[in-house]
Amino acid sequence: MSLEQAKQVAAYRAVDEYVQNNSIFGVGSGSTVVYAVQRLAERIELEKLNVICIPTSFQAKQLIIKHKLILGELETNPEIDVTIDGADEVDSNLTLIKGGGGCLLQEKIVASCSKKLIVIADYTKDSKKLGDRYKKGIPIEVIPMAYVPIKNKIISMFGGEIKLRSAVAKAGPVVTDNGNFILDWIFPYQDLDWEKVNNAIKMIPGVVETGLFVKMCSKAYFGQPDGTVVESP
Amino acid sequence: MSLEQAKQVAAYRAVDEYVQNNSIFGVGSGSTVVYAVQRLAERIELEKLNVICIPTSFQAKQLIIKHKLILGELETNPEIDVTIDGADEVDSNLTLIKGGGGCLLQEKIVASCSKKLIVIADYTKDSKKLGDRYKKGIPIEVIPMAYVPIKNKIISMFGGEIKLRSAVAKAGPVVTDNGNFILDWIFPYQDLDWEKVNNAIKMIPGVVETGLFVKMCSKAYFGQPDGTVVESP
Repeated sequence: MSLEQAKQVAAYRAVDEYVQNNSIFGVGSGSTVVYAVQRLAERIELEKLNVICIPTSFQAKQLIIKHKLILGELETNPEIDVTIDGADEVDSNLTLIKGGGGCLLQEKIVASCSKKLIVIADYTKDSKKLGDRYKKGIPIEVIPMAYVPIKNKIISMFGGEIKLRSAVAKAGPVVTDNGNFILDWIFPYQDLDWEKVNNAIKMIPGVVETGLFVKMCSKAYFGQPDGTVVESP
Repeated sequence: MSLEQAKQVAAYRAVDEYVQNNSIFGVGSGSTVVYAVQRLAERIELEKLNVICIPTSFQAKQLIIKHKLILGELETNPEIDVTIDGADEVDSNLTLIKGGGGCLLQEKIVASCSKKLIVIADYTKDSKKLGDRYKKGIPIEVIPMAYVPIKNKIISMFGGEIKLRSAVAKAGPVVTDNGNFILDWIFPYQDLDWEKVNNAIKMIPGVVETGLFVKMCSKAYFGQPDGTVVESP
């Protein structure tokens, strides 16, 4: 099985488990979510389900529109039943690193409005300890004018290294869907209290959001090389 | 003496006290800061001072340019010696409400990079307890898509009332210099631990910054009706 198939089995399992009639559904971002929306569209069509979809990014919005699902927004639907989203790394406490695709802010907003956040991923994202498998660090979305002082403050608080994420099809830094920059923080590999780290970083003026999701995820599904799905917890 | 004259005496006093040669100076926003920049420009010209000015808003940047001062930015000057800024209300612990003019985010970023934050204001801003004099509430800058869930969360945590700030020369809500909305939170008038309140609100995903400045201000100058200036502490 390929990685893509591992993503797909996890996505299908989560959608089959969690999508219900007459519900508000949060649509995550990234490559694994593409399969979830495929499956969601199939189920809605076959079973005539009434599901309003809240996107976590421009990409998610496009997926919703492409599959002709009902597009909602937090202004009219501030309480979401379940959100299904990917992650870059998931530790054994279901603490997540998210934001490899640059959509951490809207993803975290939508997750914070959801009764349940279900993560879908392939087996390479399943980790005991953050940093074991994902080496690109924790993304931190910041107000552009403040990226240098924020970088200095995080390094002086916790150490590590920080890079301003560069864009590929545009000169200069990546600009997020909300017009901000992303700092990727390669944190020192040690036992950190992620709740405290997340609080300390978010409190820095100019930090808009971090890609650390602590105590937000209820369950993760990891697609395996043999086509099975491992659940955590 | 008019209110304008009270603002002016406070501004002149602070600039005379705190601006030094070869320093980095944070320029606040609002009507009182206009007098501070006037005085700063006079002193720089007369005394041939070398001062780099870091703006806290588009308005501040325009003032710096208008007076032909040296315009700097946090990218090259992330450590500021002193910032002089206004406030909407200052309590007896020097906790501030800021953001009546909608520039709280950049103001707080610049303040957080400053060794000293000096507040200048007229006597109507000098208060024992927040809410005693300023009735427009605490401004909270938020990501537009999240304004409804954030509003609900703050009310359920602390009570009070929240209004989405409306624009005047544009239909719909005020949009800040960073493209966000402002919620004005009329908090319940009671003894609140402002540090905890500020932390709890900033931690809500989608909150970019609050107009509560706790333990950031070193000194406040209040211009009085008789032309004198009262210092706190």
